[in-house]
Amino acid sequence: MTWVRVPEGSGFGLENLPYGVFSRPGELRRIGVRIGDHVLDMAGLALDGTLPEASWAARSSLNRYFGEGPEHWAHIRQRIVEFLTDDDYRPLVEPRLVPVADISLHLPVDVADYVDFYASEQHATNLGNILRPNTPPLLPNWKHLPVGYHGRAGTIVASGVDVARPNGQRKIGDFGPSERLDFEAELGFLVGAPSDGPVAVGDFAKHVFGVVLVNDWSARDIQAFEYQPLGPFLGKSFATSISPWVVPLDALGAARIEGPAQDPEPQPYLRTAQPSGLDIQIEIELNGHVVSRPPYSGMYWSPAQMLAHMTVNGAPARSGDLYASGTVSGPEKDQRGSLIELSWNGDEPLELPDGTTRAFLEDGDTVTIRAFAPGANNTTISLGEVTTTITPARP
Amino acid sequence: MTWVRVPEGSGFGLENLPYGVFSRPGELRRIGVRIGDHVLDMAGLALDGTLPEASWAARSSLNRYFGEGPEHWAHIRQRIVEFLTDDDYRPLVEPRLVPVADISLHLPVDVADYVDFYASEQHATNLGNILRPNTPPLLPNWKHLPVGYHGRAGTIVASGVDVARPNGQRKIGDFGPSERLDFEAELGFLVGAPSDGPVAVGDFAKHVFGVVLVNDWSARDIQAFEYQPLGPFLGKSFATSISPWVVPLDALGAARIEGPAQDPEPQPYLRTAQPSGLDIQIEIELNGHVVSRPPYSGMYWSPAQMLAHMTVNGAPARSGDLYASGTVSGPEKDQRGSLIELSWNGDEPLELPDGTTRAFLEDGDTVTIRAFAPGANNTTISLGEVTTTITPARP
Repeated sequence: MTWVRVPEGSGFGLENLPYGVFSRPGELRRIGVRIGDHVLDMAGLALDGTLPEASWAARSSLNRYFGEGPEHWAHIRQRIVEFLTDDDYRPLVEPRLVPVADISLHLPVDVADYVDFYASEQHATNLGNILRPNTPPLLPNWKHLPVGYHGRAGTIVASGVDVARPNGQRKIGDFGPSERLDFEAELGFLVGAPSDGPVAVGDFAKHVFGVVLVNDWSARDIQAFEYQPLGPFLGKSFATSISPWVVPLDALGAARIEGPAQDPEPQPYLRTAQPSGLDIQIEIELNGHVVSRPPYSGMYWSPAQMLAHMTVNGAPARSGDLYASGTVSGPEKDQRGSLIELSWNGDEPLELPDGTTRAFLEDGDTVTIRAFAPGANNTTISLGEVTTTITPARP
Repeated sequence: MTWVRVPEGSGFGLENLPYGVFSRPGELRRIGVRIGDHVLDMAGLALDGTLPEASWAARSSLNRYFGEGPEHWAHIRQRIVEFLTDDDYRPLVEPRLVPVADISLHLPVDVADYVDFYASEQHATNLGNILRPNTPPLLPNWKHLPVGYHGRAGTIVASGVDVARPNGQRKIGDFGPSERLDFEAELGFLVGAPSDGPVAVGDFAKHVFGVVLVNDWSARDIQAFEYQPLGPFLGKSFATSISPWVVPLDALGAARIEGPAQDPEPQPYLRTAQPSGLDIQIEIELNGHVVSRPPYSGMYWSPAQMLAHMTVNGAPARSGDLYASGTVSGPEKDQRGSLIELSWNGDEPLELPDGTTRAFLEDGDTVTIRAFAPGANNTTISLGEVTTTITPARP
């Protein structure tokens, strides 16, 4: 039990303790850990001498902390639990609790490389059926490796930052604002401890620090015209939004499950004996109305497999690398993770409670992605949210 | 005339003055400018007070200098010319000249985002003919926009760093070292001054600082199996090598030429009244033997168009962004910029002077890319070289 008052159902109890980068008005950015409706000012604790080993906390990104590696992460987590449960620490620690209402949250990490996968069989199947009807929806490689590509790290933005509708070539001779702007609800994995080369599938937790929510904005018309043969480029690179709280893998132990069976059996470098799926429930809200609840539990390729694949060619992973799962879609219609799936490429527009319909996003629309997972001690932990409003295209 | 002795034909005369990051044994990395067989120690000049405004020079990358912008770049260039031509400066400057034989050269920049284009019509046509015979070699979008994709910034390495043959899935059920390892000779453009959004095609020189040579290593078998539908990933991401000397655009004025005519006329955001081609002659050496001389002058899409395209969707450009042209191939067989073209996918292996042949690269092979351009005052300027030896795959 923590001595901090944690509101019922907050999702930010002692079992969670996610990391973020925050600031108070007029002050520099620093690292904090969320508990209930407060953030524990880690830089303050370091300064006070309460936690002198948190020399990484007076920084504007988590990269330095990430680089310290899993033993240090576990040590710090244990210390924070002591601080928040032992009444003897209360006089030292309570002055370093800041109400979340008083802070601004920022991008938690300087993203090094950004990779986006395509790991949901249901999503890949839906897209195949929509974009390439009358052919097998999954391409021949899909069940043999987690398909992915590199995105633009420099356009990853924090929750709360507006995203302008992108301009681009929509088809031959047709330039203008995208008319098919879409969201994609994904889970993102942040590399903490770097690797010089291949990361074995069983070493996932030695390298990945934790997870964020990702909204991989997509301009379907721009993407459709440009993507052959080298993949998505400007249809994705205008913005990718992530949630501010990085939930440590250490908080997701109770969420680990067997993933779906994989057939054919993957290559040895992708095989693992451990459960490597995650029982995370995502929720997508459009203008305040929940339009989908994609379950992460059904994802075909696990995050450990994605990391093993990404590095099997010898590519190093750096502190701050972000890789995302690709759109999370479940088998039911109200479990689809993108609007192109929910509206079936516009053929079945979504009806919203205000009487309007959406084939794709309109200016002024606000998209919020949230997620929850089982935590230790029969709790529920929150992954926070990533929320974004669409603004009109530049003239 | 400079008072520094510049060897005949060095390509590093007063008209060039490229920037690099160097170190002497046991010393920290710092920024230098090459003249003849020497490097001018910019950090030393700043420390001495000879060039106090070079506060960016005691760093291990050019990023900070790049961020200063074109007026500062021009000012520093002018000061360096004064230092190297005015005998009055010689007593102050000569002690800061270090023989290139005494230094190590390093990656000149912390690469932010890396984009690779596909801007040679001849290369795209050759690849189309090889990989998709009996269909039109250029896809429908190719003449409407510079096709490109994001690569892995974290695996960009300096000239001289060995590259290990990557492992990967070569086809279904077939994992192992790539059997079709290839080079791609390209020109790379480094963004200096950042932009918050679209860069007009005429503003190229306000943002791009200069050029490097790029070898975009490619594992053709891994790439062929993985690339549908999201583009190249592990077939490219194991390594990309760049040359150590960044030649400023200010040195390439005499190399500016009209590019090829563009038909159809591109969209307005890609149109420019200025000559935007570059008369740069590339040379590719395999194990000491020149195998190709691709001319950059024939590239369909100009670097100014690539930057305008890359940012037209609103994506910011950061100091240290690198974008490469894609393989440079001319119309003649001995002007092709990759081995897959030179050997026509292995059907016509290259014959080397030692009696061996190459369809693709073998372990131990050394590939060197050099380039030259016309400089001011009827000189020739060198872009230096990027040279790399292939080592065996990890076990």
